[in-house]
Amino acid sequence: MTSPSAASAIVTAALVIIGDEILSGRTRDANLSYLAEQLVEAGIRLEEVRVVTDRTDAIVRAVNELRERHDHVFTSGGIGPTHDDITCDAVAEAFGVAVERHPEAVRRMREHAARRGLELNEARMRMARAPASAVLIRNPVSAAPGFTIGNVHVMAGVPSVFQAMVQELLPSLRGGDRMHSLSVVCDLGEGVVAGGLGGIQERYPDVGIGSYPYYRAGAFGTTLVMRGTGRDRIELAAEEVRALVRSLGGTPTDVNEET
Amino acid sequence: MTSPSAASAIVTAALVIIGDEILSGRTRDANLSYLAEQLVEAGIRLEEVRVVTDRTDAIVRAVNELRERHDHVFTSGGIGPTHDDITCDAVAEAFGVAVERHPEAVRRMREHAARRGLELNEARMRMARAPASAVLIRNPVSAAPGFTIGNVHVMAGVPSVFQAMVQELLPSLRGGDRMHSLSVVCDLGEGVVAGGLGGIQERYPDVGIGSYPYYRAGAFGTTLVMRGTGRDRIELAAEEVRALVRSLGGTPTDVNEET
Repeated sequence: MTSPSAASAIVTAALVIIGDEILSGRTRDANLSYLAEQLVEAGIRLEEVRVVTDRTDAIVRAVNELRERHDHVFTSGGIGPTHDDITCDAVAEAFGVAVERHPEAVRRMREHAARRGLELNEARMRMARAPASAVLIRNPVSAAPGFTIGNVHVMAGVPSVFQAMVQELLPSLRGGDRMHSLSVVCDLGEGVVAGGLGGIQERYPDVGIGSYPYYRAGAFGTTLVMRGTGRDRIELAAEEVRALVRSLGGTPTDVNEET
Repeated sequence: MTSPSAASAIVTAALVIIGDEILSGRTRDANLSYLAEQLVEAGIRLEEVRVVTDRTDAIVRAVNELRERHDHVFTSGGIGPTHDDITCDAVAEAFGVAVERHPEAVRRMREHAARRGLELNEARMRMARAPASAVLIRNPVSAAPGFTIGNVHVMAGVPSVFQAMVQELLPSLRGGDRMHSLSVVCDLGEGVVAGGLGGIQERYPDVGIGSYPYYRAGAFGTTLVMRGTGRDRIELAAEEVRALVRSLGGTPTDVNEET
């Protein structure tokens, strides 16, 4: 998709998913699509996602490259109690700071353990550690917190906990101009609409027009997605797209509410 | 997870998913988990995945960084007929070579178009382009080919076509020592097994032991995954893990066939 031209306030983000279980195909990631949808609402543009192995050097490199380039970096995974949970130490290394036991994290975990009748053993207490100067992200599900250091927000990988942490965190982040989108589905192949579509894109440089072919249940067609910060411009571009589809003998259908 | 120590032949790979539609949350990627599973079978370790925007600079950077670091780089998306399909040009730019119309690609697409009664317009002919010196990857679904240049394999984003191209390509790639895995599920929290698990990991540096907590249907527990190139070592580590779970009052269950 062609990028929309510079808007007045663009806020970008990246996500680092830490997880050998995803790279080995054992688990399907669910956090990318959740975060993507939430960031659209918050006016933050997710521009890059990396899935990296549970290795310190891989995490440090991804975090350091991405925090330079984006307003926000989110991480998912590797903050549990076991030997393979190394995200806290890797992020501290990326920032060149020490890891400490965080008194407020200890307090929250003690309270949770007492309520649930859990023993707070040494392994669990690992989850009360955070890089020096980090700010905790509340975990309303299982108490062990995430944290923010600089522009990096470190969260759990378990989807229910990740989602709860995103909900805790997002209201406190500065967003930019919200992206809106509108989709038109048509019963024509991509190759049929491509020529005319390129012309519309040239006339609407401030609207990103994406074209996504589909084959399902024996039928094929194309979903055309208009995205940008100006709703009126998106609607104007969409009207030209609908007219193009009709002129080529197809039937355009709006598939979702404008968002 | 701790990395297994150096095996005799480690072959690594990365995947670049090109797609604004995934970063905006509109579409869930299906190609990562498919490729991950296929690469395990082929003895190739998927070590990094990046999802990048449909922008030339983002694609060029990802391809150039990853092809230096891995034996194979796979890309998914952006090779269709529309204005937002820029992967071919971006990959050519990454290699500093020109894009040309490829005679064999033209032949295959003409044949397919004739069979299906499709018109081969200018937009569709864009899909017959490839970087100079690229080798085509056959597309048995819709003819328009992918291609390999250097160690970079460029494939379609539509899952049915991506999968078909992976099947065409994989037999021709050199794999390394195959990773095997074995999973044991237990009804204990991660914090309970963590201490003992770390000890087992220390005794089996050649087996990566991953720990994945779950909460589902009101129950919680932990899946423990042993991975490595030596099946006997994996089974020995798994037996220690089962004994650990029993010693802590839990019940270990093998969840899948050893792979």
